[in-house]
Amino acid sequence: MLSHSTSVTIVGFGAFGRMIAAHLALHCAVSVYDRGLPPGQTPAQVRFLTGPQEICGDIVILAVPVQAVAECLREIAPHLRAGQMVVDVCSIKEEPARLMQAMLPEGVEILATHPMFGPASGRMGVAGLQIVLCPLQGKGWRRLAVFLRRGLKLDVIVTTPEEHDRQAAMSQGLIHLLAHAVQTWGERPTIRTKSYDLFAEALAMVRDDAPEVFEAITQRNSHVATLREHLLQTMGPRPLAPLE
Amino acid sequence: MLSHSTSVTIVGFGAFGRMIAAHLALHCAVSVYDRGLPPGQTPAQVRFLTGPQEICGDIVILAVPVQAVAECLREIAPHLRAGQMVVDVCSIKEEPARLMQAMLPEGVEILATHPMFGPASGRMGVAGLQIVLCPLQGKGWRRLAVFLRRGLKLDVIVTTPEEHDRQAAMSQGLIHLLAHAVQTWGERPTIRTKSYDLFAEALAMVRDDAPEVFEAITQRNSHVATLREHLLQTMGPRPLAPLE
Repeated sequence: MLSHSTSVTIVGFGAFGRMIAAHLALHCAVSVYDRGLPPGQTPAQVRFLTGPQEICGDIVILAVPVQAVAECLREIAPHLRAGQMVVDVCSIKEEPARLMQAMLPEGVEILATHPMFGPASGRMGVAGLQIVLCPLQGKGWRRLAVFLRRGLKLDVIVTTPEEHDRQAAMSQGLIHLLAHAVQTWGERPTIRTKSYDLFAEALAMVRDDAPEVFEAITQRNSHVATLREHLLQTMGPRPLAPLE
Repeated sequence: MLSHSTSVTIVGFGAFGRMIAAHLALHCAVSVYDRGLPPGQTPAQVRFLTGPQEICGDIVILAVPVQAVAECLREIAPHLRAGQMVVDVCSIKEEPARLMQAMLPEGVEILATHPMFGPASGRMGVAGLQIVLCPLQGKGWRRLAVFLRRGLKLDVIVTTPEEHDRQAAMSQGLIHLLAHAVQTWGERPTIRTKSYDLFAEALAMVRDDAPEVFEAITQRNSHVATLREHLLQTMGPRPLAPLE
């Protein structure tokens, strides 16, 4: 478990970083480093760091888009010490896992994670929602897993970055591809069934995601290309065989 | 409005015909003709006809799959008289509309309809659900529309068969295509988001539909081919442009 003597530094203070801070500030000491954030913009319960050299957390959470992970690691890696644990929260896992393993100094523990929710879907509470953990270096992740399970009541799934990305292509990747496709049609049918209404509700949940999230999920997950091929094959060529 | 002196004959007594009978028996006299149904299988409140020559309803509802409409019309057309109204309930509208207009005798009124629900999605009540009406011949449909609105509290949409099929391709057609595609993958991801859960729930609603429903919705609606092309185009070729 985490304790109040555990310190966490969140690097990146966008919507996701703020959500993490709000959940963790009740359980441990939280500091924040965000190069782009002017001092004074952080809530009272977190400490704002003015440079990467001040990063001190036992756990350092990279709350930046996957597109910014390499640059972020370049900036903070010189200031990390053996025994600290670096955690990312990107929507895909193979690419940030590779970058963290390549760019972090020896002795630093590494845990790739993907909370399967965001500020919108987690706004009514996160209990029961999924978080995927991909342990890459060290054993400290076990304590964090216990905290996520018992402290935040999350459904913790431990797997590899490859298996995460393969499965996420089928769930998250597919929804984003469909949301993109349907949105480009520019027309919403007024004649529709209950099942279509549920489908539209599902797509609406990802419609306001940032463009870099869409890009990460549909372009940087290497399994999405295979998924799309499957989808195109199983939806055509016409005529389709009816289901057995 | 319909009254208790209005008589309705339902031709075809599958799951959909039974649902219609259950809703109408409270409001008017219902008889049923189903060539394949052995006598004794009908509920007490409906009268079972033994041959097409007994079809007597002011309104004759064809509750048969679109694949059986032509054969059904061939059987019953010789026994219909001017002033009766023939109504179909198929999931697509252009094909049955064309058949009814070509095969029914002069003076018979014709109304193509599509209740946008079935025995499953309507089992908790139909109030507020949509029904599409495409009036093709005569004015009797207006009385029926008033009954559907006031008596059954349905959301009545009046349009053409062509516009119905164009819009239904985007809603019902798309869901059936996706349900078919996803089912053929043979794997359901365990790593998933809330939006994926809603999507899976939408697909589950059509998973148990009869094969002829799937065939009608995805093969006999001429607008689905265009829809599928749109979908394939907007989901590829990679790389996709991110949403604005």
